[in-house]
Amino acid sequence: MKILVIGASGRVGTELVKQLLADDHQVIGTTRQKETLFDDDNYSQLDLDLTAEKDAIQSQIDNDIDTVYFVAGSGSKDVLEVDLHGAIKTIQAVQDKGIKRYIMLSAAFSLDTSKWNTPGIADLKDYYICKHYADQWLVNNSTLDYTIVQPGALKERAGTGKIAINDGDSGENSIEDVATTLAAVLNASNTIKKAFNMHNGDIDIAEAIATV
Amino acid sequence: MKILVIGASGRVGTELVKQLLADDHQVIGTTRQKETLFDDDNYSQLDLDLTAEKDAIQSQIDNDIDTVYFVAGSGSKDVLEVDLHGAIKTIQAVQDKGIKRYIMLSAAFSLDTSKWNTPGIADLKDYYICKHYADQWLVNNSTLDYTIVQPGALKERAGTGKIAINDGDSGENSIEDVATTLAAVLNASNTIKKAFNMHNGDIDIAEAIATV
Repeated sequence: MKILVIGASGRVGTELVKQLLADDHQVIGTTRQKETLFDDDNYSQLDLDLTAEKDAIQSQIDNDIDTVYFVAGSGSKDVLEVDLHGAIKTIQAVQDKGIKRYIMLSAAFSLDTSKWNTPGIADLKDYYICKHYADQWLVNNSTLDYTIVQPGALKERAGTGKIAINDGDSGENSIEDVATTLAAVLNASNTIKKAFNMHNGDIDIAEAIATV
Repeated sequence: MKILVIGASGRVGTELVKQLLADDHQVIGTTRQKETLFDDDNYSQLDLDLTAEKDAIQSQIDNDIDTVYFVAGSGSKDVLEVDLHGAIKTIQAVQDKGIKRYIMLSAAFSLDTSKWNTPGIADLKDYYICKHYADQWLVNNSTLDYTIVQPGALKERAGTGKIAINDGDSGENSIEDVATTLAAVLNASNTIKKAFNMHNGDIDIAEAIATV
């Protein structure tokens, strides 16, 4: 498959691209960094500016992309330009290109505002508002075959290959497990038009994904 | 008419309430200020927190309100909580109440991102992103009979009673004229489901409104 990964130099993006290349996909990664992130014949790179106008973003996206991942994040530095407006411009651009599949990395309970008073979310309210309305746009205002993956806190620790999904709780996540989950969603048609929460757990990722 | 003015203590809100009371409407103004803003038998006041949850906001809104004005603004201090999420929660609450008419004070070219590189807008990008998606919500995600009024820069100067509408330019506005325009929209059914740009001009406000 030919896959566009928006935000390839991020903590999740780096791990996701690595896994997609290992699965023999052709990957185009976007980053603002100049150096090429991966030395692989199946990898190419795009300097994509999410603060540019939607048409400028669209003109940089190949027509024959099969799936787009949005795993970019401003790290709370520019949530409005990147996590909200930047994300929605990519949704609009991808849809106008005629590409159908769009997989969004979001955050635990991004669509469930009743959970926003919990510790860990309340401190990230501005970020959550931005993720919320970007996700809402995917759900309500796009015709894309989206999947929204909503992990809790991301931790730099080795993956376990096991997660929990939609159990009503939030929780920590190994970044490697999040990337494995994102990669597993690629061929899981049951996840189309769905959003799911995830965190570290006891169920094999493929098995957990099948329950979405 | 029984009218809810969200943001009654703002520069536009104060002038708007004054005009609505002069037109013998019953006005409920919302503000975070404790003292009552207007000494008038037709005026009452609500301490409405736009950062509260949508259901809490909804519980404070009377069922028999005819029209809601949203003229609140964070003054760029809390654009995400007030101008975006706060506004959308009021839209949802008003709709869930069964109230139909909602008049939004927005900003010049809030819905036309191609104009956002112009001076005066580029410096207010975060504010514009918030107003954009709040307005988009009204247009695409609500069933309300909305009108979106989009003036350029607001100036504290005497009104002229004359404006220009949708001429492709932005420009300054007397706050009094903006309030008069908002009040005139109340009974102008031709403005329902419309957004229009405005600035100081040569056309009587009622006449200009009729062309929307």
